[in-house]
Amino acid sequence: MKHEIPYKIYLSENELPTTWYNVRADMKNKPAPLLNPATMQPITAADLAPVFCDELIKQELDDNTPYFEIPEEIRDFYKMYRPSPLVRAYCLEEKLKTPAKIYYKFEGNNTSGSHKLNSAIAQAYYAKKQGLRGVTTETGAGQWGTALSMACAYLGLDCRVYMVKCSYEQKPFRREVMRTYGASVTPSPSETTSVGRKILAEFPGTTGSLGCAISEAVEAATSTEGYRYVLGSVLNQVLLHQSIIGIEAKTALDKYDVKPDIIIGCAGGGSNLGGLISPFMREKLRGEADYRFIAVEPASCPSFTRGRFAYDFCDTGMICPMAKMYTLGSGFIPSSIHAGGLRYHGMSSILSQLYDDGLMEARSVKQTEVFEAAEMFARVEGILPAPESSHAIRAAIDEALLCRETGEEKTILFGLTGTGYFDMKAYEQYNDGKMTDYIPTDEDLARGFASLPKM
Amino acid sequence: MKHEIPYKIYLSENELPTTWYNVRADMKNKPAPLLNPATMQPITAADLAPVFCDELIKQELDDNTPYFEIPEEIRDFYKMYRPSPLVRAYCLEEKLKTPAKIYYKFEGNNTSGSHKLNSAIAQAYYAKKQGLRGVTTETGAGQWGTALSMACAYLGLDCRVYMVKCSYEQKPFRREVMRTYGASVTPSPSETTSVGRKILAEFPGTTGSLGCAISEAVEAATSTEGYRYVLGSVLNQVLLHQSIIGIEAKTALDKYDVKPDIIIGCAGGGSNLGGLISPFMREKLRGEADYRFIAVEPASCPSFTRGRFAYDFCDTGMICPMAKMYTLGSGFIPSSIHAGGLRYHGMSSILSQLYDDGLMEARSVKQTEVFEAAEMFARVEGILPAPESSHAIRAAIDEALLCRETGEEKTILFGLTGTGYFDMKAYEQYNDGKMTDYIPTDEDLARGFASLPKM
Repeated sequence: MKHEIPYKIYLSENELPTTWYNVRADMKNKPAPLLNPATMQPITAADLAPVFCDELIKQELDDNTPYFEIPEEIRDFYKMYRPSPLVRAYCLEEKLKTPAKIYYKFEGNNTSGSHKLNSAIAQAYYAKKQGLRGVTTETGAGQWGTALSMACAYLGLDCRVYMVKCSYEQKPFRREVMRTYGASVTPSPSETTSVGRKILAEFPGTTGSLGCAISEAVEAATSTEGYRYVLGSVLNQVLLHQSIIGIEAKTALDKYDVKPDIIIGCAGGGSNLGGLISPFMREKLRGEADYRFIAVEPASCPSFTRGRFAYDFCDTGMICPMAKMYTLGSGFIPSSIHAGGLRYHGMSSILSQLYDDGLMEARSVKQTEVFEAAEMFARVEGILPAPESSHAIRAAIDEALLCRETGEEKTILFGLTGTGYFDMKAYEQYNDGKMTDYIPTDEDLARGFASLPKM
Repeated sequence: MKHEIPYKIYLSENELPTTWYNVRADMKNKPAPLLNPATMQPITAADLAPVFCDELIKQELDDNTPYFEIPEEIRDFYKMYRPSPLVRAYCLEEKLKTPAKIYYKFEGNNTSGSHKLNSAIAQAYYAKKQGLRGVTTETGAGQWGTALSMACAYLGLDCRVYMVKCSYEQKPFRREVMRTYGASVTPSPSETTSVGRKILAEFPGTTGSLGCAISEAVEAATSTEGYRYVLGSVLNQVLLHQSIIGIEAKTALDKYDVKPDIIIGCAGGGSNLGGLISPFMREKLRGEADYRFIAVEPASCPSFTRGRFAYDFCDTGMICPMAKMYTLGSGFIPSSIHAGGLRYHGMSSILSQLYDDGLMEARSVKQTEVFEAAEMFARVEGILPAPESSHAIRAAIDEALLCRETGEEKTILFGLTGTGYFDMKAYEQYNDGKMTDYIPTDEDLARGFASLPKM
């Protein structure tokens, strides 16, 4: 085969972006402010200071500054695994016999196995710069915890991870990666926090949830001298850091004069999708270009497609600020049948606003269809994708198959957020034909909505 | 930090090598020929035809042709994950406070997680071209089996893997990766072959060995219409394919006028080391340049440093051709305490000859020291290395520390063959302080040597 565009487009190190892009600066309708749950008033920097690092609070609350410089120390760290490759999926195109041109931005080429590292190093850096001793966080599937432990090991910062108990037990290898990077890993709920003890007393056999682990990590940070809490998704600051994905992708495509028609990303809390689309969304917001953006979420946890746009708690313990977002309610519990990540009840406020404004589409997909796409992709493209990323693969394949029907030569870009090496239990289920689908009933959803705060 | 040489040197796709290099062509003392165990005569292409693909037999037996063209189809596959990055280990250098300059060629950037894919695709390609239906092989830790299953999935070839039983049980996730790529995986010894049944009858509780799995895979290939056997290391053809590692590394270094003083690789069967050093060894053999080459092997399986240079069986069942190599005897059984791969009793004939001719050094390292190096490397360089690769890391660190003492600014190149994502059980052992070392006694070795054939 002869191709003008290479299989992989690598930018050189001196093309590594020097700034992150803050999409809020170009949004006409800004995302609604976080509320202080005690006062129900927009949260202030002072309110947040016990929880987050000062510099990150500035980034969190700044709706107007379009570009933030990436400190040189962070850029040095990025150079260990960035710029990440933009891949032309020639083999997938051939397999699908589609006239569509498919590209993916691959963020799994690092030991954390996902894009989470982009924000982990930024958050750890600002904590270190503030003279803190350590950070706390929660992790579900383990990608964020792994990323944070890598960043902290690099900077010599203590890292305490609350890992959802069922993951702690089912994913011992993830836990060991974090320990190898020197992090302490506590199964949540635990006896180490009052919110953990309360939940354990109420539900003795519980295997935990992300919302509960967040509550524990926040409590651990605010009650320990020299510690702050950091979070791997949802927040504005995280989308800011993740904009590096989109900026690199756009730079690489621009080099070859390629303009995507459709941009697709999986959406749990929204960090990858928000980062990937940001520089393209900038052009759309400014009327300079048009793109279709598609958020892909699991049918079992459909925040965008079946959720409500409302203020909600970010955590089960209701100690975090409240955010206006598409949500299923903090009391919504995704079925344990669902193997594929993206289990968070809410969604980034930025993406929620863009979606509500009609600037973005969303769709949900069933996990058996997701793993079918994952397996096909693995076999032809050679990368075993994370279940989360495979939601985007599914949608990209569906769009490419549509092009086969219509004959349209659309250009599709999707985010391949990570690899699935620590998800082989789910692949085993699929390989054994034992994977089933779960779609919440209206009653299931009603129970979640009942947990929404009365405003 | 400002660096002239980037963290990662990526060659472009059109710099991907177009030929493999056959180091035998430049060796004055050729490696001793394989022997037919039935006749004790040098093996012929006809002898090998039932076992190996025709084109691979040609490559195996050709001691004189220096370059073999890489078919375009294989090059297309290579483009999915090659050229692989050559990394300047700035962070490791800083950590070690060494004046040495350290580079590593990273071969773990693909789903098989190691360099094995370089030969897997070549062997699968020639099988496909010959019109075969499938291939059989054995796998120990699982890297080779994974690589082969990926190559076969890509080409639509059936893949049957005999996996050493203890690995099959201890590494279910490796097994699932192979299944995801459509391979069938059988724990060895099994009831599916006569050699397997014989071993099971003799040792009912055995958890298998690499030598036994080889015997089963060879029997399965030779007794099934349209199948051949393929092997991931040791053989001349494998070193030929793996020369792409060294050729790329040398091209990248030449671009920046960097000449390594010391080149280090881990050595189990020798495929990575042989591939990495080949273009440099060419210059040494031709008197054009000098380099120090260091093979690093585990203290628990010290083929080079404590073995004998003799004809030996390659497999337990003694059905494969015999090779002259540094060996501990096919009856040598590495301790189950040893977690870190590289457990094969023998060594590539090519490397054995080079070592015997004094063109290469060898040293052995203890596994606790290997994991100490692995953890340090993971924390500063951000890549969680495979235990096998970490043998090379250990030696590279030791050489760099020596430079710190002497003040010499040596340039060190080592092969980082793969990632350790499927080896977290071993890391857990190390993290828990439960890893111990094992060094075979002279009596242990004598038992192995007793299994050497009488010539």
